[in-house]
Amino acid sequence: MILVMYSNFAPSARHIGRLAEFSRDMPVRVATSEAEALALAPDAEIILGHRYLRQALPHATRLRWVQSTAAGMDQIITVELRQRAPMLTRSAVASRTIALHALALSLALARRLPTCLARQGQGLLERPNDLLPLPRRAMVLGLGEIGRAVAALLHSLGMEVTGVALSSGPAKEQACDRLLVGNAWRAHLGTTDLLVACLPLTETTHGLVDAEVFAALPDHAVVVNVGRGANLDWRAASAALLSGRLGGLAVDAIDALPDPADPIWQSPNFLLTPKMAALQPDFQPDIEAYVEAQVRRYFLGEPLLNIVDYLDTRT
Amino acid sequence: MILVMYSNFAPSARHIGRLAEFSRDMPVRVATSEAEALALAPDAEIILGHRYLRQALPHATRLRWVQSTAAGMDQIITVELRQRAPMLTRSAVASRTIALHALALSLALARRLPTCLARQGQGLLERPNDLLPLPRRAMVLGLGEIGRAVAALLHSLGMEVTGVALSSGPAKEQACDRLLVGNAWRAHLGTTDLLVACLPLTETTHGLVDAEVFAALPDHAVVVNVGRGANLDWRAASAALLSGRLGGLAVDAIDALPDPADPIWQSPNFLLTPKMAALQPDFQPDIEAYVEAQVRRYFLGEPLLNIVDYLDTRT
Repeated sequence: MILVMYSNFAPSARHIGRLAEFSRDMPVRVATSEAEALALAPDAEIILGHRYLRQALPHATRLRWVQSTAAGMDQIITVELRQRAPMLTRSAVASRTIALHALALSLALARRLPTCLARQGQGLLERPNDLLPLPRRAMVLGLGEIGRAVAALLHSLGMEVTGVALSSGPAKEQACDRLLVGNAWRAHLGTTDLLVACLPLTETTHGLVDAEVFAALPDHAVVVNVGRGANLDWRAASAALLSGRLGGLAVDAIDALPDPADPIWQSPNFLLTPKMAALQPDFQPDIEAYVEAQVRRYFLGEPLLNIVDYLDTRT
Repeated sequence: MILVMYSNFAPSARHIGRLAEFSRDMPVRVATSEAEALALAPDAEIILGHRYLRQALPHATRLRWVQSTAAGMDQIITVELRQRAPMLTRSAVASRTIALHALALSLALARRLPTCLARQGQGLLERPNDLLPLPRRAMVLGLGEIGRAVAALLHSLGMEVTGVALSSGPAKEQACDRLLVGNAWRAHLGTTDLLVACLPLTETTHGLVDAEVFAALPDHAVVVNVGRGANLDWRAASAALLSGRLGGLAVDAIDALPDPADPIWQSPNFLLTPKMAALQPDFQPDIEAYVEAQVRRYFLGEPLLNIVDYLDTRT
């Protein structure tokens, strides 16, 4: 059985029909509650979506494959998943949306739009007095699907892009002007105008953007994190911004909201979006088409895209 | 004599030296006040900058060439200039900055950053409920240096770009996916997600983005004007936004600030920047290098770049 449990949308009838077609009439069932998910789990060979995944896993004795609709896997890879150890694939559909969101955050800070909006809110038309130079050199941390999309966008805007990854590879090399592996990137922070973090959350990347990074960046640098909040050392980031040693800071996710008295809320060069980098209202047709293509590959015996190598990684 | 009167910065010593070198030791004088400009005007063959231009023109009987440091010429082309009729050249140095500013405004509205910032100001982390689809089809009105730079940026972000100009030409054709001349563009507004106006202010372009345009655009469309305020029919734009028939509106210049009681100030999808699209703090070396190259061309007898054909145009 194919068990469908998407988080943010109800599957279309057309989608269910296509899944049945590609699976050669394997039953396709949709769980709309935890109870349904638990009842259907014992017969599931494939789970599409992860809405009730953790709860269903102990019962899913026939499970071979989980296709998540998310990009970040740190909250999907639980003890229960490791025990069951199905193949896990993530979604790359939102990469372009996330890359454009990262670009929106970067340019908004570079052009001081938060300051303009604050003055506009007071009925004032007054130029910001801390305009930044246009970013010329960008560094992208993490060259997965998202990081490569960000690097390609920044490059197409005329920036010189340094990409940073754990290992090299043709797709990573092609996405940026210069690829750095290992810790070499830290030596290049002093000439970085824009730092964009597009990292998965793993033991290696937890707190990777740390006090040392903020100390090495020039004072006009803009830092943007479209990954998990924990990729960034929040105290170091906040201290750098508030002491004027950073041109701007944008984060799409934050692990704990700062105290209402925290002066960061008053910083005109801080920009916080509510974990919406991947959101777009018209995403459902795209994600459904992506999942259908994956299911088709599965039943044709072709390799799946975006397989997550989670059994070898401690997260 | 070369008379220098820049508006926003004092020329560097290096710049003055280079001007003297390229002009084969024609005297180079800097006017730092209107009185100085008037005193020096009678000997000026060339005026670089336009700080006291209007006042100096009646006295500048030997004037042959004015190099402005601005992109928009509507405020430079005065009755006094027409009477004196020197050659006039504009600056294209800021085209990339203006294009990036247009992109910053477009993406900020597409990703609802003003709403996020307003909620952040209240200490809230809550997703906007009116997220827009990512813009796929863009239309750029005006394919001068700036419009072409905007078109190229949007194209490189993966959008299908329709360019609109008074006449066709290889550079314009190359900058976009489809070039429309004349009034053909109005028939294509219904499929336009993002409309960016990059127009000079002339009789033809005054109020060009009018009520008919707003009626034809889809409700999710974002309209961005990085030209003069008068290119846009403000009442029509404001009415479309406030009645929910427009996804977002950003303007970099406005002719008269709306009344403090105007509900447009409260619209989360309105973004006003204080005529700063061309501003960047590190522009002086670029503009000085541009002017030096123009002066070099002048004395070598080569054609100048960005000549403004103002004697044939009523503005």
